[in-house]
Amino acid sequence: MDTNWLAQPCAALNEASRTKALERQGQLTKPPGSLGKLEAIAVQLAAMQGTAKPQLERAHISIFAADHGVAAEGVSAFPQAVTAEMVKNFARGGAAISVLAKQINATLEVINLGTAFPVDSMANVRDEQIAPGTANFAHGPAMSEAQLAAALQTGRAAVLRAKQDDAQLFIGGEMGIANTTSASAVACALLHESPQLLAGPGTGLDDKGVAHKAIVIQRALNLHQANLAQPLDVMRHLGGFEIAALTGAYLTAAQNGIPVLVDGFISSVAALVAVRFNPCVSNWLIFAHTSAEPGHQCVLAALTAQPLLQLGMRLGECSGAAMAVPLLQLACALHNGMATFAEAAVSGKI
Amino acid sequence: MDTNWLAQPCAALNEASRTKALERQGQLTKPPGSLGKLEAIAVQLAAMQGTAKPQLERAHISIFAADHGVAAEGVSAFPQAVTAEMVKNFARGGAAISVLAKQINATLEVINLGTAFPVDSMANVRDEQIAPGTANFAHGPAMSEAQLAAALQTGRAAVLRAKQDDAQLFIGGEMGIANTTSASAVACALLHESPQLLAGPGTGLDDKGVAHKAIVIQRALNLHQANLAQPLDVMRHLGGFEIAALTGAYLTAAQNGIPVLVDGFISSVAALVAVRFNPCVSNWLIFAHTSAEPGHQCVLAALTAQPLLQLGMRLGECSGAAMAVPLLQLACALHNGMATFAEAAVSGKI
Repeated sequence: MDTNWLAQPCAALNEASRTKALERQGQLTKPPGSLGKLEAIAVQLAAMQGTAKPQLERAHISIFAADHGVAAEGVSAFPQAVTAEMVKNFARGGAAISVLAKQINATLEVINLGTAFPVDSMANVRDEQIAPGTANFAHGPAMSEAQLAAALQTGRAAVLRAKQDDAQLFIGGEMGIANTTSASAVACALLHESPQLLAGPGTGLDDKGVAHKAIVIQRALNLHQANLAQPLDVMRHLGGFEIAALTGAYLTAAQNGIPVLVDGFISSVAALVAVRFNPCVSNWLIFAHTSAEPGHQCVLAALTAQPLLQLGMRLGECSGAAMAVPLLQLACALHNGMATFAEAAVSGKI
Repeated sequence: MDTNWLAQPCAALNEASRTKALERQGQLTKPPGSLGKLEAIAVQLAAMQGTAKPQLERAHISIFAADHGVAAEGVSAFPQAVTAEMVKNFARGGAAISVLAKQINATLEVINLGTAFPVDSMANVRDEQIAPGTANFAHGPAMSEAQLAAALQTGRAAVLRAKQDDAQLFIGGEMGIANTTSASAVACALLHESPQLLAGPGTGLDDKGVAHKAIVIQRALNLHQANLAQPLDVMRHLGGFEIAALTGAYLTAAQNGIPVLVDGFISSVAALVAVRFNPCVSNWLIFAHTSAEPGHQCVLAALTAQPLLQLGMRLGECSGAAMAVPLLQLACALHNGMATFAEAAVSGKI
C-alpha cells in the first residue's frame, strides 16, 4: 500500500490574511480583546482559509468505528457488541452525533473499519473493514504494517472526500469499545507518562476497573517497549484502526490546508501522533473541548492546546467538537458582520 | 409608581417533569453522564418548562442602555458619548449583540433608559428615558425611589412583552459607560468584599485606572454605608438604570416561570440583587459564561453558579449569553432526539 503521501509537507498558513484579520478585529465596535477566544479563533481561521473574512458554512464529519482486541482484557464498562450496535445507531440517526450533525447542518459519514460483530450492509455506512477489530495488544502488536497503512489511508480518503465537497472544516469522530485503553496506551508511550496518570474511567469504569486498565496498559508498554520510538510504530503496536484513521485524516487535512476541529481524548491522542510525525500539522488544528476523561489534560498540555469548551463531556463520536461548531460560526459572524468604529461613528478609547 | 408586583412569589419548578427528563437521560444511547453539563441543562429546562422534552426555539433579548453619573470620576477607558453611540449601533445592526441575535434567530429589542448624550428617535429603540443617566454616586444616591421603581418596571415590562410573544428564554443585556464601576460597588455592598477584590479593568483600564476605580468605589461605600442593608437600597444608591432594569426583569421572569439566561459580570450582579430580594429567583436562572472581568468569579460563587462557557469574553451586551444559546438548543435536541437503548437495540453496561 502506498504510504508515500505521509511525507507530503503541510500547507502554509496565510500570514497576510492573519494580519488583515487582526487589524479588522482592532477596528470593530468593542473594547479591544473583549470577545476573548472568539477573536483569536476568527483570526486563526482567516490564516487557515487565506481570507480576512473567514466562513464556516460547510462542515464535514467522518465517524470512524472499529473494535479492539484489548477489550478481551475486561477494560470497558460496555460489551464489545456495542461497537457494531452503535454503527447502526449512527446510521439510523439515533446517536448523539447523528442528532448534532443534523442540528448544525454538517455532512455526516459513518465508516466501519472493522467491528468484531457483523454489521449488515447499510446504505449510509461505508464498509472499509480491515479486520474484525485489532489484535489484543496485551499479547502482540495491535496491527500489521499493512493494516496500519490501510487505516491511515481510510482517514486520508475521508478528508479527500471532504475536500471534494468544498468542506471548510473537517471533524473526525471515533467509536470503539476499549478505545480509551488504546488511546491511553499510545499517550503513555508518546509522553513517557505512567498509565496510572493517563488511564481513566472511559465509558464508566469504577476505581477498581481503572486500576486494572492501568495494569493492562503497563504490561503492554513493557511488552512493546523495543518498538515505541516512532509515533507510527506506537500507533501500530498500541493503537486502533479508528484512531489511526483519525491520524491519517489530520495529516491529510494539514497537507491540503483544511482546518480541523479536534474532539476529545481519543481524537487528541490521534492528533498527538500526527503532530509527533509532522509538527506542522498543529497549525491546522483547533481544539473543541476538554473531556472529562482525566488523561485529556495531559495530552492537551503536550499539544499546547487550549480548547474552547469545558462541558464535562466524555462521549466521543466527536460530540464535543460538534458542540463547538456554532461557536466557530458565531466567531466568524462577529468578525465579518460587526461595524467598525468608523462605520458606526462610535468614539474610541480615551 | 406601583411596586406591589415586587412581592409576587416565584413560579414553582415542575418536579414531575424533572424526574421524567432525568429518567429519559438514563435511557439514551450513551454512557450515563457522558454528555456532562448538557444533561443537567436539559433536565433543568424540563423542570422550568414543565415538560419532559424541553424546547428553545424562541429567545427574547432585551438590551437596556443608560448612563452613569459616576463616569465623571474618570473610571472608564471610553468617553460617556459611547453609550448613546452604541444605542444607535445596536439599532443599526453593527454591534456584537446585533450580529449574534440575528445569527441565533432571537428577537432583539433595545431600550434606552437614559443616555447623557441625546439619541435621535429611532424606529427600533424603545425610548423609556428616566433621566440623562444616574446621579454620581460618589456624591449622593445614584437614583431616587421613583427612578429605581421606574427602572425595575422597565425590566418587568420587557419580560411581559417576551411572555406575550411566547418566548421560551429571556436574555437581558446592558450597555452603559462606567457600569462595571456601578456593578462592582453593588457587589461590594452585597457581598461585604473590598473594591480591591471586585473592581476590574472593565472596557480596558490599566492597573492605575483600576486602582483609582477601587478608591472611588470605597469612598462611595463609606458615604452610603447607612443605606446598604437591603438589596434594593443598594441598587438605588450605587446601581444604574440598566442594572435595575435587569433585576426587575429577572424577578418578573421568575414570577412568570420564564427561564433566564444570565450574561456576565453586570448581569450577574443584577441577578444577585434579585436573588437577595427573593431567593427563589435563582431557580429560574441559567448562567451562560464566566467573564474575564475578575469580580465575576466572586459574584458567581455567591450565586453558586457554574456557567456553561469560559471564553474570556468581557463585552457585556449579553454577548456571552447569546453565545450559549446554541449550546442550550443542542442540549435540548440531544435530549429529545437521541434514541434510547431499547429503541436502538444497543446493549447496556456490563
